Amino acid sequence: MQADSIDSNALRSGALTRALARFVADTQWSDLPAAVRNEAKRSLVNYFAVALAGANDPTVDKAVNAYQRFRADTHASIVGRSERTDMLNAAALNAMSANVYDFDDTHIPTIIHPTAPVAAALFALAESQPMSGETFLLAFVLGVEVECRIGNAVSPEHYQRGWHITSTCGVFGAAAAVAKALALDEQKTVWALGNASVQTGGLVETLGTMSKSISVGNAARNGLLSALLAEEGFSGPDAPLEGERGFLRVTASQPDWSAITSDLGHAWELLKNTYKPYPCGVVLNPVIDACLDLRRDARWSLDDIEQIELTGHPLLRERTDRPGVRTGRESQVSAQHAVAVVLARGKADLEAFSDAAVADPSLRALAGKLRFIDDASWPVESAQVTIVLRSGERVAHRVHAARGSLAAPLANVELADKLHQLAAYGRSAIDAHALIDRLWKFETAQDAGAVMHLARARI
Amino acid sequence: MQADSIDSNALRSGALTRALARFVADTQWSDLPAAVRNEAKRSLVNYFAVALAGANDPTVDKAVNAYQRFRADTHASIVGRSERTDMLNAAALNAMSANVYDFDDTHIPTIIHPTAPVAAALFALAESQPMSGETFLLAFVLGVEVECRIGNAVSPEHYQRGWHITSTCGVFGAAAAVAKALALDEQKTVWALGNASVQTGGLVETLGTMSKSISVGNAARNGLLSALLAEEGFSGPDAPLEGERGFLRVTASQPDWSAITSDLGHAWELLKNTYKPYPCGVVLNPVIDACLDLRRDARWSLDDIEQIELTGHPLLRERTDRPGVRTGRESQVSAQHAVAVVLARGKADLEAFSDAAVADPSLRALAGKLRFIDDASWPVESAQVTIVLRSGERVAHRVHAARGSLAAPLANVELADKLHQLAAYGRSAIDAHALIDRLWKFETAQDAGAVMHLARARI
Repeated sequence: MQADSIDSNALRSGALTRALARFVADTQWSDLPAAVRNEAKRSLVNYFAVALAGANDPTVDKAVNAYQRFRADTHASIVGRSERTDMLNAAALNAMSANVYDFDDTHIPTIIHPTAPVAAALFALAESQPMSGETFLLAFVLGVEVECRIGNAVSPEHYQRGWHITSTCGVFGAAAAVAKALALDEQKTVWALGNASVQTGGLVETLGTMSKSISVGNAARNGLLSALLAEEGFSGPDAPLEGERGFLRVTASQPDWSAITSDLGHAWELLKNTYKPYPCGVVLNPVIDACLDLRRDARWSLDDIEQIELTGHPLLRERTDRPGVRTGRESQVSAQHAVAVVLARGKADLEAFSDAAVADPSLRALAGKLRFIDDASWPVESAQVTIVLRSGERVAHRVHAARGSLAAPLANVELADKLHQLAAYGRSAIDAHALIDRLWKFETAQDAGAVMHLARARI
Repeated sequence: MQADSIDSNALRSGALTRALARFVADTQWSDLPAAVRNEAKRSLVNYFAVALAGANDPTVDKAVNAYQRFRADTHASIVGRSERTDMLNAAALNAMSANVYDFDDTHIPTIIHPTAPVAAALFALAESQPMSGETFLLAFVLGVEVECRIGNAVSPEHYQRGWHITSTCGVFGAAAAVAKALALDEQKTVWALGNASVQTGGLVETLGTMSKSISVGNAARNGLLSALLAEEGFSGPDAPLEGERGFLRVTASQPDWSAITSDLGHAWELLKNTYKPYPCGVVLNPVIDACLDLRRDARWSLDDIEQIELTGHPLLRERTDRPGVRTGRESQVSAQHAVAVVLARGKADLEAFSDAAVADPSLRALAGKLRFIDDASWPVESAQVTIVLRSGERVAHRVHAARGSLAAPLANVELADKLHQLAAYGRSAIDAHALIDRLWKFETAQDAGAVMHLARARI
């Protein structure tokens, strides 16, 4: 359906939801371009990397304690942990782990972290019923497509207003993916989306708190439940997305209807997905790249530094001018902390953005030397760091496209390395080599759920 | 806190959420006026009445099938059914049953159905841990207070925009009530509200479909879970309600801050609660009253009717001018159907608004004789029905305040009668007398959860 054919009658009758549902029900593995199949596997490698890191975070510990009280069976695994649980809890807890450090992937047009809700729901299902790797990957691609297109239709207002878009749109992605994996027909897929439409929630206000993880977990859990209910014949409205009181109009004042269906099956949202090299706000990526490069060539010592200048688009300053942060979580969006820790330690890993790093007095002193220089003519994905030495000498490094951006994507080997490092960080003692190897050839797997056996902790 | 003292600093720091949490944590049974205690019991009688009716609806059947797959234990009962389930599922399923026919109570300022989410969550908890009737009633009153005050703060825009306010505000009510029953302190009650803030969902678009019941169930389930998580130390933001990206601003453009705290502990929202005598939109209540009265005095037969005039505020026409409805559910908001079925049958019970009644051709013929007469000077709670006979004679009945309105509340004996009738309708073979008797003296109960033993079906 083309944008210019979307009139008010079509909206009332649910033509957009139906088109999306038909696309999910009809699309086959052979319809997916090779680049899309490949990106799906890259997304999954990154997913396991970040879930292995997050699996033993205190937020996840507490959630596991609470949720395990309500496990119906032990069919499903929790990434990086030894407990077993039921399908719905596994979906919730694994999505939480993958997102708890905000180190998961980013769909550039919407800043949705697309994989956590969709992959967690699908793996939970895959441990309870037979599913091939090919079926999984197809369902995953379609789930991400639905989730990100819905996100495109409400962006940027939706997030700006305060909706945590990964949670609010993730539930549709999980519902669509599971609907596909269950081979639901077009009508039942419409119902799955309708059942998801009443289960969207998540507020930007909760970022940096444990509460945020609940809605990310719910996106996976409730998306899965939405499709299971639809399979039972639990029916919903015709136009849960575009209806007068449907999701799109309720959460955005002027939805972009065309984003739902234009180029459906030709343009793929997964190709706009990116993976973070560093565990912090993406806008800091070029800053960290510049600092790593400056340090690599350093003919100066930290004591020589008089001042540090950070030049970039004003948005960089608005989002990251945070001196005196008190927690590791806050430090993930502080340019002061990022510049100091990377110049001092030459690394930008999870330890660098931990409570312990923030408490280091030498870093605080260095952070105090940063000043911002706004230049609205610079693209947001670029930045320059200039070190002014006591001698008066200036050493500068400018980054045009940060590592991990669409222009400079992480290589497969870098993603694998991220998984190795984060598995070590999470101390779950899994066989990372075996897991990575299985994921790179996932389309040939007979049993998609068996991957989870490689990802759970062995005690 | 008075409205004029609410400045932007207070909003940023979470003063409103904190005041509400402190109120919940501090209020004692002795602080509740007798009228409030009494209204709590009336709300519970009505709750069991409607839940007993809804318990075997196809929507609930399907939900039970799906949810029972994920029950962790059998500690909790389902009203009007013989299955047992766990605490979270019981909260969800019982809230669904109580609301599935929209025959549950109505908080007049917001049109929230306040009891279903709060009572379902509390009874589920009460079957798993000791709780007296007094503790239950206190927690219930406070939950309703929180839920309705939040609703007041976002009304009327919130519902008009498309949020299903019973679901979106109900989760806060359930969270606050369970926080009280768990004796959480002020800080943990703030967290419970924060955990609830990311789990609000529900769209008006889904009214009349099964999907709607999911969000009503979630309000109870997720509110309960929010408080259980807070008890574990699962923390949230300081200002989940009033923050820049908190619930109130995200779901209403100009929240009424003062509604949250003004007269807290002095004015009680439960005293604005009403109970429906008929299973349809409240706006039809005076119409049905008029028809019942006309029929009671009838010196005419249906065949004599040439035309039926319905006079009322234009809102009445806007909301209920629905000729040719096709389902029982649609008939609940159709003046044409309501007038026809009540004049023909002299009853306005669940059968009168069923699929079977809608399919009755004689009712369709009678319904076709209705015409609306707008008069903006009439209060919305009034209506007049005038029968124009073939002889030219006109017989009119005007209702100023409908049965079940705040001005003409249902008597306790009418509420008890509603429970008897709906228990029979639901065919759950419970001892309705024993249940009603227990509820009227609920404040003396040692074990609040034992009420559920009287409300579940015996097989």
